[in-house]
Amino acid sequence: MPDTTQTGTTQTGTTGAAATVSPEQAAVEQQLVDTVVASFDHAEDPRLKQLMQALTRHLHNFVREVRLTGDEWNTGIEFLTASGHITDDKRQEFILLSDVLGLSMQTIAINNPARTGTAAATEATVFGPFFVDDAPEIPLGGDIAGGAAGQPCWVEGTITDTDGRPVPGARIEVWEADEDGFYDVQYTDQRVAGRAHLFADDHGKYSFWGLTPTPYPIPHDGPVGKMLASVGRSPVRASHLHFMVTAADHRTLVTHIFVQGDPQIEIGDSVFGVKDSLIKKFEPQPAGTPTPDGRDLTNQEWARTRFDIVLAPAES
Amino acid sequence: MPDTTQTGTTQTGTTGAAATVSPEQAAVEQQLVDTVVASFDHAEDPRLKQLMQALTRHLHNFVREVRLTGDEWNTGIEFLTASGHITDDKRQEFILLSDVLGLSMQTIAINNPARTGTAAATEATVFGPFFVDDAPEIPLGGDIAGGAAGQPCWVEGTITDTDGRPVPGARIEVWEADEDGFYDVQYTDQRVAGRAHLFADDHGKYSFWGLTPTPYPIPHDGPVGKMLASVGRSPVRASHLHFMVTAADHRTLVTHIFVQGDPQIEIGDSVFGVKDSLIKKFEPQPAGTPTPDGRDLTNQEWARTRFDIVLAPAES
Repeated sequence: MPDTTQTGTTQTGTTGAAATVSPEQAAVEQQLVDTVVASFDHAEDPRLKQLMQALTRHLHNFVREVRLTGDEWNTGIEFLTASGHITDDKRQEFILLSDVLGLSMQTIAINNPARTGTAAATEATVFGPFFVDDAPEIPLGGDIAGGAAGQPCWVEGTITDTDGRPVPGARIEVWEADEDGFYDVQYTDQRVAGRAHLFADDHGKYSFWGLTPTPYPIPHDGPVGKMLASVGRSPVRASHLHFMVTAADHRTLVTHIFVQGDPQIEIGDSVFGVKDSLIKKFEPQPAGTPTPDGRDLTNQEWARTRFDIVLAPAES
Repeated sequence: MPDTTQTGTTQTGTTGAAATVSPEQAAVEQQLVDTVVASFDHAEDPRLKQLMQALTRHLHNFVREVRLTGDEWNTGIEFLTASGHITDDKRQEFILLSDVLGLSMQTIAINNPARTGTAAATEATVFGPFFVDDAPEIPLGGDIAGGAAGQPCWVEGTITDTDGRPVPGARIEVWEADEDGFYDVQYTDQRVAGRAHLFADDHGKYSFWGLTPTPYPIPHDGPVGKMLASVGRSPVRASHLHFMVTAADHRTLVTHIFVQGDPQIEIGDSVFGVKDSLIKKFEPQPAGTPTPDGRDLTNQEWARTRFDIVLAPAES
């Protein structure tokens, strides 16, 4: 009986709670779990049945392991209620909750399995709530800033497959926050800034001007923010630049690159999006340093970084 | 490493998913779980730390065991969002969700441990959303109906402690739905009906006129109702009469009694509130049968039942 095995493990394996629970009491609790699990036996959709039965077992394991009190149950109900009430078409507290519990990243990890080999596919990370479908197209070497404030940053790289072959014409979506930590969609003036799409050239090469990423907090004026504060966790995300790369016959890649040396990487990215392979060197260029495309930045420091992207085959 | 042990169990014990997960992939996923758990290490409140770390482990175990897809994750976010938006001061979809997953009953089971012995305390069950604090007081033998429609039912019993001693003056709150399946608070006309409180006499005896309970569905026009329908579960609650009994030096008892022979008991109570010890015989009395207190029910069938209540000591 997997259920029993697992509950047994939970009861004894993680807290030793079993020591305080009489066999008679444990039997009463397990009987309830078995009854609830059985209540889903007649679901027509076998996947839905599997999901609901597993969710039931794991949530009961949690409640039994911690010996949840009535007051704590109430607090949980109030937390979910407040999260529902702050959520609207611009604010999604439940996604935020999934993010700060690492459940968003875990789902991504599960659906983008790790690979071995020298040409391992580029790792994925959280999509985030700030992507917009119809970002403007820019030419190779174009500027995504669209007036967004920040330090200019030249980004370039090559897109290849896991056999090292270039992927010509791959579509690259890029988006990021401005130096004040806000995405264009967080402003009320309908601006489109800090986002664009472009296409790799015939050799899979791409380049564009963006902004050197800066750290910013996730919305933390709601229940999730209060929870983070109450456990001493920072709501700040490590500085990052979003990419989504799509190409025929390849698995769509949703990822970011992070800034090497950003202290927030050590403190901890609030949504657990950082992967070592995605931390890139952003090289500061003193004002007046010649730019790759002759753009005049005589009076302004800028930066440059390189992000070579490897796409997994579609069928994997 | 309890975490590892447990995740190992989850991966292999319940779905055999481990067979499809490479050791490298499992390591990536476990590393993420460990990182999220560690993010709560500095919580000042040790209980809050325990709760968040356990919640993290169990939710990740769920996501990893079922190999949750991105679409399924979206469906979950949408379900929570819809539940939050339908919840207001009269409607609580998250409590309903906890109820239909058996989590409310599990919390009650945990906080009202089972007992052995001939004088075992009366079992508790779900509180439900329909209790009201200031229900009218009635004398012994009084009527709680207050105009609520239904078959009159004489309810009597004795309140004792686990040593069999009567508990004089115990406060008894009783409430129930009318024969149409609605509690007074579900009507918009401010009626107070089908609820009252009374006090046991010097020998711990009590009696009152109520209504023979009838089955009714939990509110099922929201996300929880849709979920129940999609898995072929009935939203109907087994017929019941609510009790809350309080007395100095005794553990407050929140429970129901259920109607022996109610088919919904076999079909399954939608919130898993039924316990065998709480199923009582409601004996139909033909019209004209003399009533215990001389009430004239010449032209009406009525019923009678007995519920002897045993209160646990407060310290347990």
